[in-house]
Amino acid sequence: MKALLVVAHGSRRAASNDEVRALCERLQKEAGAEFSLVRAGFLDLAEPSIPEGVAQCVRRGAGQVVVLPYFLSAGRHVSEDIPAEVEKARAAHPHVAIRLAPYLGAAPEISGLLLALAADSGEGDGSSG
Amino acid sequence: MKALLVVAHGSRRAASNDEVRALCERLQKEAGAEFSLVRAGFLDLAEPSIPEGVAQCVRRGAGQVVVLPYFLSAGRHVSEDIPAEVEKARAAHPHVAIRLAPYLGAAPEISGLLLALAADSGEGDGSSG
Repeated sequence: MKALLVVAHGSRRAASNDEVRALCERLQKEAGAEFSLVRAGFLDLAEPSIPEGVAQCVRRGAGQVVVLPYFLSAGRHVSEDIPAEVEKARAAHPHVAIRLAPYLGAAPEISGLLLALAADSGEGDGSSG
Repeated sequence: MKALLVVAHGSRRAASNDEVRALCERLQKEAGAEFSLVRAGFLDLAEPSIPEGVAQCVRRGAGQVVVLPYFLSAGRHVSEDIPAEVEKARAAHPHVAIRLAPYLGAAPEISGLLLALAADSGEGDGSSG
């Protein structure tokens, strides 16, 4: 069984963390057969941590876990902190295949998405709110 | 002439700001006739600010400017700080139509993009680094 752990920075603002959790619920519905389980994890300021998030997936039966950084820029969090947490999870679960996916900002499709958002806004009359 | 100002938080790490500027150069090429000019703006820690970024677009001939928050979560920056900066830009350029687009994290297409990134990773053998 394959699980996806979407990792956000984590915020002192509970609503921001809940926004990530809601995204994961939506992903769970859209993932179909690809991922049986989609969970949120946080680098800081919210729970679960990356190792704990991976552990939760393993307890639910995951033999493979993909960790995906929900980050826009390739800063220290993406290049150092998240890989270090993933190493901790690997050490704790040597029998589980734990892979680190590219961070969201690395996706070339981001530009098309931004242009679509900008075009929507540019064509409206602002009356929707 | 219509311009797009992509607004990031801004970072002390120059490479993160340059990553946003590089994205805007890519957007400029992909925008075609929709936006004649695509620029980066920053809420904090980098230049130009939102009002200065709008002013740069206006100096280049923009009669319409779309401001798009390059943010994943609907925190205070998206709900209060960016709208306040956009109001300053509107006050400085009352003859220019300045619209605030939805923030990136609000795009429903984000989930499909995440699943595509996660699937790529899951099928690779990790040898690409």
